Amino acid sequence: MAAAYDPNNIFGKILRGEIPAHKIYEDDVALAFMDIMPRTEGHTLVIPKEGARTLVDVSPATLAELIKRVQHVAKGLQAAFQCDGLTLHQFNESAGGQVIYHLHFHLLPRWDGVSLRPPGTMGDNDKLAEQAEKIKAALTPFVG
Amino acid sequence: MAAAYDPNNIFGKILRGEIPAHKIYEDDVALAFMDIMPRTEGHTLVIPKEGARTLVDVSPATLAELIKRVQHVAKGLQAAFQCDGLTLHQFNESAGGQVIYHLHFHLLPRWDGVSLRPPGTMGDNDKLAEQAEKIKAALTPFVG
Repeated sequence: MAAAYDPNNIFGKILRGEIPAHKIYEDDVALAFMDIMPRTEGHTLVIPKEGARTLVDVSPATLAELIKRVQHVAKGLQAAFQCDGLTLHQFNESAGGQVIYHLHFHLLPRWDGVSLRPPGTMGDNDKLAEQAEKIKAALTPFVG
Repeated sequence: MAAAYDPNNIFGKILRGEIPAHKIYEDDVALAFMDIMPRTEGHTLVIPKEGARTLVDVSPATLAELIKRVQHVAKGLQAAFQCDGLTLHQFNESAGGQVIYHLHFHLLPRWDGVSLRPPGTMGDNDKLAEQAEKIKAALTPFVG
């Protein structure tokens, strides 16, 4: 667990606008967007703008600001989907479940009796766009 | 997802010293201790002292300080176990996987090719005590 950050990863490209994403929240610290392989309805990712590979690499100051955005988006998901619960996953290195090497928090709206879908299945693009709009509409202004 | 915090939960009791725990880090904001049903070697929990039920209930200020402690402990786990990765889980409400209704972050050291154990199996008390000492010895002084 000590590899360097490589900006040539998918989330780095999304941050630089080189590839598109269904964005739901953005400020100077963080970006939140739909996971294109959703394991639940509303599966959202929150990433820092700082180039950091894992939880242990990111600066504490950025991490502290980032988690406030994670909470903010979590509240938006709750309002948008009226879910029964939320699961947060954050994976570090391949052994820890990480696939994209830019720090990210997964926020998964959950419903009683509904399991997570297995990873790796692409979501429907129109549906993801629709969900992003729904979440954006449910977000209150961010107050750190 | 809108139930009140009930201080009569196991982690509330640990915070008040009413039941024991294998503690590894404590300050005015947070407490970290071994999960007694470890899903990996070194499975650690980090909780706020603030009485908060879930990720969306905790005050943003406490959450920001708490995640710095999560990172601090993650670095200690990495140093203590020389793991290949780390998985972070945080569950909200029963539908989200929560069992104890005091906000907590799970930190799970991971090794290549080693799956998580199924939940619900008690760990060996002496081994947990030994691991707690090992992690404590590996922790550097916390600098927010």
